[in-house]
Parts: sequence; C-alpha cells; structure tokens
Amino acid sequence: MTGTMKALRKMTPGSGLEMQTVAIPQIRSSEVLIRVIKRAICGTDLHIYSWDPWSQNRLKPPVTAGHEFYGEIVEVGPDVRHYKVGDLVTAEMHVVCNQCFQCRTGNAHLCEHVVILGVDGDGCFADYLAVPELNLWRVPAGINPDWAAIYDPFGNAVHTVMAGPTVGKSVLILGGGPIGLAAIAVAKAAGASIVMLSEVQPYRQDLGRKMGADRIIDASKEDVPSVVRGLTQGQGADVVLEMSGHPAAIAQGFRSIRKSGRYSILGIPSKPITLEFNNDIIFPGITIQGINGRRMFDTWFQMDAMLTSGKVNLDPLITHRFPMDQFKTAFETGLSGKAGKILLE
Amino acid sequence: MTGTMKALRKMTPGSGLEMQTVAIPQIRSSEVLIRVIKRAICGTDLHIYSWDPWSQNRLKPPVTAGHEFYGEIVEVGPDVRHYKVGDLVTAEMHVVCNQCFQCRTGNAHLCEHVVILGVDGDGCFADYLAVPELNLWRVPAGINPDWAAIYDPFGNAVHTVMAGPTVGKSVLILGGGPIGLAAIAVAKAAGASIVMLSEVQPYRQDLGRKMGADRIIDASKEDVPSVVRGLTQGQGADVVLEMSGHPAAIAQGFRSIRKSGRYSILGIPSKPITLEFNNDIIFPGITIQGINGRRMFDTWFQMDAMLTSGKVNLDPLITHRFPMDQFKTAFETGLSGKAGKILLE
Amino acid sequence: MTGTMKALRKMTPGSGLEMQTVAIPQIRSSEVLIRVIKRAICGTDLHIYSWDPWSQNRLKPPVTAGHEFYGEIVEVGPDVRHYKVGDLVTAEMHVVCNQCFQCRTGNAHLCEHVVILGVDGDGCFADYLAVPELNLWRVPAGINPDWAAIYDPFGNAVHTVMAGPTVGKSVLILGGGPIGLAAIAVAKAAGASIVMLSEVQPYRQDLGRKMGADRIIDASKEDVPSVVRGLTQGQGADVVLEMSGHPAAIAQGFRSIRKSGRYSILGIPSKPITLEFNNDIIFPGITIQGINGRRMFDTWFQMDAMLTSGKVNLDPLITHRFPMDQFKTAFETGLSGKAGKILLE
Amino acid sequence: MTGTMKALRKMTPGSGLEMQTVAIPQIRSSEVLIRVIKRAICGTDLHIYSWDPWSQNRLKPPVTAGHEFYGEIVEVGPDVRHYKVGDLVTAEMHVVCNQCFQCRTGNAHLCEHVVILGVDGDGCFADYLAVPELNLWRVPAGINPDWAAIYDPFGNAVHTVMAGPTVGKSVLILGGGPIGLAAIAVAKAAGASIVMLSEVQPYRQDLGRKMGADRIIDASKEDVPSVVRGLTQGQGADVVLEMSGHPAAIAQGFRSIRKSGRYSILGIPSKPITLEFNNDIIFPGITIQGINGRRMFDTWFQMDAMLTSGKVNLDPLITHRFPMDQFKTAFETGLSGKAGKILLE
Repeated sequence: MTGTMKALRKMTPGSGLEMQTVAIPQIRSSEVLIRVIKRAICGTDLHIYSWDPWSQNRLKPPVTAGHEFYGEIVEVGPDVRHYKVGDLVTAEMHVVCNQCFQCRTGNAHLCEHVVILGVDGDGCFADYLAVPELNLWRVPAGINPDWAAIYDPFGNAVHTVMAGPTVGKSVLILGGGPIGLAAIAVAKAAGASIVMLSEVQPYRQDLGRKMGADRIIDASKEDVPSVVRGLTQGQGADVVLEMSGHPAAIAQGFRSIRKSGRYSILGIPSKPITLEFNNDIIFPGITIQGINGRRMFDTWFQMDAMLTSGKVNLDPLITHRFPMDQFKTAFETGLSGKAGKILLE
Repeated sequence: MTGTMKALRKMTPGSGLEMQTVAIPQIRSSEVLIRVIKRAICGTDLHIYSWDPWSQNRLKPPVTAGHEFYGEIVEVGPDVRHYKVGDLVTAEMHVVCNQCFQCRTGNAHLCEHVVILGVDGDGCFADYLAVPELNLWRVPAGINPDWAAIYDPFGNAVHTVMAGPTVGKSVLILGGGPIGLAAIAVAKAAGASIVMLSEVQPYRQDLGRKMGADRIIDASKEDVPSVVRGLTQGQGADVVLEMSGHPAAIAQGFRSIRKSGRYSILGIPSKPITLEFNNDIIFPGITIQGINGRRMFDTWFQMDAMLTSGKVNLDPLITHRFPMDQFKTAFETGLSGKAGKILLE
Repeated sequence: MTGTMKALRKMTPGSGLEMQTVAIPQIRSSEVLIRVIKRAICGTDLHIYSWDPWSQNRLKPPVTAGHEFYGEIVEVGPDVRHYKVGDLVTAEMHVVCNQCFQCRTGNAHLCEHVVILGVDGDGCFADYLAVPELNLWRVPAGINPDWAAIYDPFGNAVHTVMAGPTVGKSVLILGGGPIGLAAIAVAKAAGASIVMLSEVQPYRQDLGRKMGADRIIDASKEDVPSVVRGLTQGQGADVVLEMSGHPAAIAQGFRSIRKSGRYSILGIPSKPITLEFNNDIIFPGITIQGINGRRMFDTWFQMDAMLTSGKVNLDPLITHRFPMDQFKTAFETGLSGKAGKILLE
Repeated sequence: MTGTMKALRKMTPGSGLEMQTVAIPQIRSSEVLIRVIKRAICGTDLHIYSWDPWSQNRLKPPVTAGHEFYGEIVEVGPDVRHYKVGDLVTAEMHVVCNQCFQCRTGNAHLCEHVVILGVDGDGCFADYLAVPELNLWRVPAGINPDWAAIYDPFGNAVHTVMAGPTVGKSVLILGGGPIGLAAIAVAKAAGASIVMLSEVQPYRQDLGRKMGADRIIDASKEDVPSVVRGLTQGQGADVVLEMSGHPAAIAQGFRSIRKSGRYSILGIPSKPITLEFNNDIIFPGITIQGINGRRMFDTWFQMDAMLTSGKVNLDPLITHRFPMDQFKTAFETGLSGKAGKILLE
C-alpha cells in the first residue's frame, strides 16, 4: 500500500510527541500491514513522553510510539501463510530473533536480540502498522475490541499471576496500576482463594474493588503484613505480586509472604533495593521471580481462555478514551495517575 | 473411654453388613478417639456390602466398615500434641508407614504398607473411631458439617483435577458418579474455561448441571468426541478425567483429547482395556496418569481453600440422609445409582 | 544455485529407492541451501524402503528420502539473518507452522501442520538440500561430524530420557535399537543411578554394553521384572523407556516399574496393546507419556551440552558407513537388524 | 538404658563447649537410642562454639551440641516399627511437627515448629543420642561410615543443586566451604556440563579441584563474570549456587548468570545485601531461591543414590579426624578455615 498516514512520533530527544504525516510502511515478505483501529497508552509510553532516563538511553528518534493496539489486516506479504486481508488482530510487539537460547527454549520474551515496536522500531500510534506474521494474534470472535487493544498489559498481568500455582492460593498484589488491577481479575479467574490489593490512592482502590479484590489494604493507614496475616491464618500470602516498584511496598511484601511462598516481581524500582537475605529469602525458603513481558505465546492462549469464557471482565479497567488528535490530553491524564487504561481511537 | 457402642460390621464373608454392639476402641498413645457425628457411604462401601471380588480378596472379617466421616474428639493419647478434646475433625483414613520411599517422597497416598480404616481396620460406621494424630484433619470454622463428612471423596476429585494445570483449560469428565460430579465444581473453581460431563443417566445429568457443568454430553445420543471438538475449536479437551471405569468412555476420552493433553484416570475398569498406542498415546504426545486416593496433605489444604472461599458448593452432591439404623435402605439407595452422596447420621 | 544433483528417491509406490539425477532445489527467501556431507539411515527410512503400510499411507511419490544429515551452507535466501555460506549445520527436519496451539506453547514437535522433510517433502539423501532458517542447527566447533549427522535420532533419545527427572533414578530401557542404545548413554549422562537394557539380540546386547549399560537383561533367558526388582531394592525402576514397540516388552515394563514411576513410550507397536488399567496404571499411580520427535529446541541444546562436555560418546553407535551409491547394501544392512547407525557419505 | 555418658555441652552463655558426664537420654515410645560412632563438625557448631549473635539468640544452655553423626541403634521405644537394635543409622536432626502447612505439603524442612537436635535440644556430640523414628535414616550397606556421618551437610549440597534442572547445565558455585565443595561433586553427578568454583583460598581451591571442579576461579585475581561468560558462549551460567554469604560474591553471581537462570542461595550473609532489581532480577527474568536444610526425605534418597552408584566420592572432603576429647583442637582447626569436614570419633 502506498500513501501517507498520521503518526505520533518522537522526532528528537526531549519530552513530548509530535503528530506527523509520514509514508505508510512498506511490508517485508513475511509481514502484514494493519490498519490500526484502537490503541492504548502504556506506562512505557508515559516514560517516552516524559523522556525519562530509561527513554534517553533506549530510544533513537525519530520513532513512532505505541505498542498496544487492535486492528485489521489490509495487506499481506507473499510469505504470509496463516492470515489474510480482513483478519482482526492484535500482536506481540516484541520482535524476537527465534535463534538465541532464550527464543529456542520457551523464553522468547527474554530474547537476546529483541526489537520492540513502538520503542526500538515504529509502533502503533499511527494509522497503519507493519508486523511480522510470527507476532500476530488473531482476536477471537466475540472479544470486545477494547479488550483486544490491551492484550499487551493484560498479558503482563497474566504472565505474572500464572508464573506459579494459583488455585486455592492467597494472593497479595502490591500496587494498583493498570497491570496490578488486571492481575486482580486474573488471580480470581485463576482460582485464588483470596486476592488482596495494597494501594494507597483512593481512585485506584476504587478500581481495585471493581476488578474484584476481596480486600483493599491502604498502606498509608494499615500495616500491610498484619492485615495479610490476619486474613491467612497468620501465615502470610502464598503468592506476592510486586507491581509498584516502590521500595516500601517491596519490603512489606517480604514481611507478608508465607514460608516457601512465591514473590513475583514485575514493578520496576527506580533505585537499588536492600534485602536482608537471611530473614527475607533463605530461612523462609522464598522463591523470587523476575517477570518481564509475556510468554510467547502461552500467555496469549491463557488470555483468550479467560476472556472468552467470561472469567475476566476488563471493562472497569478502561477508564478513558480520546481521539488520536487529543493525544496531549490523553497523556496528561495518564501522567496524573488517576486513570486505568486510556484508549486512543 | 470404656463402654460399648453400635458398629456396622462385616462379620463373615458374604453380602450385607450387620449392626453389632462392640467395645469402644482403646486408643494408642499417638491416637485420638472420635465420636462420629456424620458418615457418608462410598462406592467402596457398596462393593463391601455386595461382597464383590475385590472385597472378597481384600477384607478380613470381622471389620467395621466406613471411611468418610465428621466427628468430635473425645479422648487424646498421651503423645498427641496438636489436638484436644472437643476439636471437630475428619481424617485421612489411609494409615501409612511414613518410612517407605513413597511416604518419604511426597507420595504417601501410594504407601507400600497402607492400612485403610474401614477396609483393613475398623472404620467409622460406628459411634466411636480411633485415628492416629498424623491422620487427623481439623475442620475449619464455618465449614458445613455435611461437607466435612465427605472430604474423602471430595479429595479424590480435587486430587484428580489438580494433578496438572487447570487454569484456562477445557476439561472433559467421563462419568457422573459422586467423584465425577464433585470434579465438575472443582474444575470450575480451578479456573477451567469449560467443563463438559459425559454421562448417560438422566438423574446424574441433572446433578451434573447443578454442580456447574457447562455442557452435559449424553453418550447414548451424541458422539462425545464430536461434541468436545465442537466446543474446543476442533482441538479436543486439554484435560480428560476418567471417572467411569467404562471401556467405551475410556476410548471416547482418547478420541476427545487434544495433542499433548492430560488424561487422568481414577475410575477402575472391571476388565482389561485395549489401546492403540500409536494414535492414542504416542503420535499425539498424550500423558496418562493413574490417580489414587488424595495427596497427604496437599489435597486437603486445597479442599479447605476451595470450600472456605466459597468457590465450591457441595450441597447439590448430598442427595440423601438416613439414620444409622436404616442402613439397609441407605445402601440399597446407593446401589440403585440414583443418588449422589448418602449420609448416615 | 543451478545445476543437477544425485538424489535417492521414491519414484512410485512400491519397495526400494532409486538414484536419480534431479535439479538442485531452489531456495525460498527464508531458506538456505546445504551441501550434504554425511547422512544417516533412520528406521523410518527402512519403512519407506520396504514400503510398509505406514509409508503407503503417508508418502506421495516422487520424494527424496532422508532426514538425518550433516552439511555445509552454500547459499542463503535474502531473509536469512543468522547463518551464512560456509556454516556447518544439521537441522530439525520437522518444518512446522509456528502458528498452531502446539507450536506456540512449546510443543512444536506436535505441530498440527508439520511437514517432515524426507517424508512429506524432499529430504537429505541427495547432494543438496533446502531448509528453512528456523530449522537450522549450527554444529558446535569440535563436534565429530559423524555425531552431527545423527542429531535427529540422538534427539529422540534425549527427548525421551529428559521427559522427567533422571538424576539418581533407576532406568530400564526396553529395546536396543539405535535410539534405545543412545538412550543408555544419555541416561548415564543425565545422572541415572543405574541403567538397565532389555534386549534379546546378542549383537545389540554387545552395543548396549559399549554404550554404558550397567546391566543387560536378556528377556529370552531372564524374567525382566525379577531382574529389575533385584537391582532396585525390590521396588522396580523409577523410569521405564519403551523403545521396542514389542507387546511383551511393554507388558514387562508395567511389571518392572516402581509405584509413581514414569513410563515414557517412543517405540511404535504394530498392533493394539491390552492393559490392566487397575494394576498397571491406577493403583500404582503410574504416569505414561507418549513421546514423539524432539523438543524444538530444548532437546538440541541438551544434545550440544552432552556432546561438547564429553559426557556422551556416540562412536560405538555408528557401526557402518557406505558411499551413497552403495545404498542398497546400506539398506539391507539396516534391515538385517545387525547394525547401529549406518552413515551414507 | 541407664547409666552415664560423656557429652560436649554448652553449659552457660559464652564461648567454648565443655565435656560433661551426664545421664544417658531416656527415650520416648516413638524414639530410639543411638550409640554414636562418628560425628562431624558443622559451621553451625563453630558459631555455637564462638557464641556468635545468632547463637546468643537461639540457644538455651545447657544443651549438648552436634547434629552430624553415624551410629548404631541400641534401644527402641515400644511404638517404633521399622528399626531394631543393631541397625546402622544417621538422622535428619530437624524434629518437625508434621502438622503445619509446610510439613503437610512437602516442605517439612521449613516446619513452623522445628526443634533442631544439637541446637534446640540435645545433639550428637555425646556417647548416646535419642532420635524419633520419623527422623531416622538407615545407612545402606556398603556406604563408607565417614560419609554416613556427613549426610546432613551433604544433604544441604544435594538440596541446593537439585532445587532445579541440572542436566546439561553450566553451574557456578560461589564459595568453597564444605557444602560448596560437596556441591561440586553433586553437580557433576547431576549431569552439569561444566562446574565452576569461585574461591579465593588456596587450601579450598585445592579441595575444589579434588572434588571435581572443571574450573577454579580466584576472585582475588580474576573477574568472575568474565571468566564465567568466557566458558559459557558469553551467556553466563545457567545455575548459580551461593554458598559463601559474601556480598561481593553475591553481586558477582548476578553478573555471571544467564537470562532466565536459577540463583539458589544457601550461604548466610551477615549483613543486608543491596540489589539492583531491574538489571539483577527483572529484565533478565532470574529466579532466586532461598535454600534451607534438606528435603525430608527426597534429598536423602538422592544422597543414597549418588553414593551407592559411585557417582559421588566424599573422601576428599574429609580432611581431619580427632578423638572426642581433643575437641578443642578440632574446633580450632575448623575455625582456621583450612579444613574440609572434621570428624570426631
């Protein structure tokens, strides 16, 4: 396809994004071209917008932002075999090498040579997007298109929750950002006996309730470990999911977890964290897991199953929607912290 | 405690059971004496009552039958440390050696030297029962006593369902006896995306619906593999749970399962089964698991979690209750097949 | 590359193969062209040569046979990124779809749409071979080229052995064909405490000894379960690997396995097998696994590690080598059963 | 049995131990009395001897020290069923409750109510020792009695190594104390492709070589991550075992581990440790495990298998032996750091 399109791009180092008119991407033989219908703003996009130290290190402008979307295939390369024009899709935006040890042993989400579209290559905050066939995910019939637009962060939540046993387990989630909020519904769907959310912000506490948390803990008013132990026969949570990146929350997690428990960490702290290995890890026999991205594509099948079976409802998570050209308002809303997921349509 | 009590006993080889007056059991130093409040009839009890070939081989009369119960501790031996008079309990009735390879590697349910109370030793169809402390299970506050009386068969269901991943999986249960029926609710609580029950008897089909099956398949009228594949994008069920012991059902299971699926087998066939290893097991990469008893005591914690969290409701499963002295009517009801669980109170 | 080459082909239904002169394959954009240096004959090739019922069903002549090889890349397609001319490689010859549930959840060896080169498409019994980049495996420096030519069957052995825990386990292998023989060395390298081989043929017994079996059991003279139990404190083998496809051996396996043991089945029986589910599977809590192909590519990394660390020596397994044009002698030798692996150079 | 015996005891708070004459222990109905034949000194015993802060908090004198031994049963309580006078045994000295969640779900080594003999109760640095039947381990015929005396620390090594996959894995061990040294041989026996030991002390480097390390890394002269990456195709070790408790070593471990690697931590640091969660754990998808004690009794069966199969030789690890009454010299030798295991006979 030829012609031009609108794209929200980082043109030069510095804060903000610019709406540009650029050429529609030309696809490779194993790629498809997608007309983007819905996009969502990720925390990573807010970092890129703000031009934080991570963005300064990683991005090489000019680049089109955005990696959460739902769209329709409008063109397929000659080597594409399993998709056709008109298919409704989303995609895993980690384009991986399929040859390194990680890729070839079930950990492609940790690929040594990953290129993330919307970070390292042009993303979905545009009218059109080119994606390799290997990255496509067909959206099942009946899935709400809004939900399809947020498979990426929903997948972070599913990957974190599903990184160990969940059925009949007590689960503590630290931090009620969009992924923490999604994790509430996922943990419930995954058979958790009780799901507790630690979150101080009233707006997010309210979203936590709507996503199905059995108990919201306000760390500004309550002692998190005491509350958790009170709800778990004094033992602590079987599973702690760290989604805040906050040092105080991380420490509370260690004091709230059961011996032999699982502590899965997705939230990215901005500073080093000090642990008392003896009492935090060794004596209680804790397992700590670093969590990153989504499993390719085990997580995606789990997402489909949870959504199509009606076990997870993502509606409360989507709090705002804006047209593409109101992107500044959308990003400011995201930066305010008083938002779940924000769609750009 | 001294004195006499009533006990339902197999006195000599042959069918039936007799209500006898016998001495209250004397406990060992590491045992407790339990006043039995509720009992339930197991399929095994029906076999003992009917004096089938298995019973003829295994039982050494006289012996008191029964291994499903709820009761109150009325006496504790001097070496008992964790229970006291007045505690409300049920028990794992497999008394194991704690020394063999199986016992010492997490498979005590497969102990080389197991003694089953109610089969190899005196059971719970009596006013009082002696049980080793290691076998006791404290009934959590708030658990319906009826449910506490059926932890044993509920545990069979939980063990079978939980013998592999369940979250987001499609599950086919073959056979709607009490354990198959319980497995429906367990699979739902364990996050299955869809639970299908294959059962031909209308009475049990109705119970299957009440226990939460998403689809009842009547193998006398429908082709089970076709229905299952129709509900699973043509792939077959991720998990098949065999709880009928019926050769035709077993074969249908192999034709209804997805490649790389899990086929867990609890139902005991009365005859040899012929398999086509190539197409049934090897080419599709199937895993078959023989399932027996309940994990000691992983399964019991899972049961507590599912019941206390409200994720499983066992009420529909309990269809009849009789006083102890109407045991003949109770057993005849069980043998009719038109019953879920039958309590003796 | 243009020109002609020699290829060993099934031209029409019926037994035998024919040496033909055909065009060198034209590669697709994501494929490489390989000059084949060494080839090995698989049991599957013998079936194709003999034109057994499986071959009659599966093959669509004309097709070039062969799927075990070692070679050098002589041409790369424009989309190939990780290999270059001169690289020494072998390959996984299961060309998979990378889109089905199995492919996308770590079970690509069970792909719903697999095309096997040498069976469904042109294979390696030729001067040149075209293979997709995703299927290539770089042969590590220092690996004996003979060994590189048999990664495919060696991978079957590694996949079977590694399908469950092996360290400190007692292992019984049923059948001393090439894969069973390789499995001996693999099980030893994988930490098995004892490896027993059941095999009746003296030629293969001798190879079993050379591959490192701790005990050869001759089922024509000894009672396999008795010998196994005598070597395992009366308990039976922790792991049984079925590599014979023989009904009597399969039955002996069930009587030789420990409670809660693992029974992994690779050997393909030509007839249905009758099992006593109660005593074979359910009461002893056995797990049966159908094994197929090799994991893509976990198994391949395991192969590299075992060979480059010197833990496995495949030399005794390679018993014959012939030039390509003596293929008839080579195949007759394979059909005689008195051979390990046969190379075509 | 009545009479008196010699025992090495902590009589009052403060450094040192005293040889006392005390009554032979009276056994409970489920215990046995053991005549101790060989004992070994653990690092914990050195802490007790030195009266470090941990000892000051934990011990309640008077108490007999020692928890590593080999002996002969000389008396059995009336409820003991599986052992008899004359049996040669060692024991797990963690006496656990068998009722808490950890005990009843396969994690008895993390029991909420553990009593460690030799720490919380009287231990084996005496002529006789009382041990519950549930804690006994029968020493297999043919096992070197010296080795039987060090099952406890050998078990720490086996538990740490076996806490995840090992076959074909590259393993880095940080710290060449007795457990680190034992872990070398265990990792080799468990199929590791390469075992590297980081240790600065020449005496221990030498022992590391004797235990089978493929490469000794001297962190005082070499950059550990560089050496490890050089030996692992630039990727880092699949498995890191922390057995030093040293902050610098812990940090080197994080820079030496492969993405998605396993970092198992047994060594107890005396101070808090600061981690950079992003680069140490989250982005590379690392799993960290706190390791404690030995699995009851999976680890013990693994030990038997490794020793009786000849895969592990513990002789180089035992560097000193003293008669009981030269205990001061023995402890001073241990505190010097120039020792492997020290036996008291």
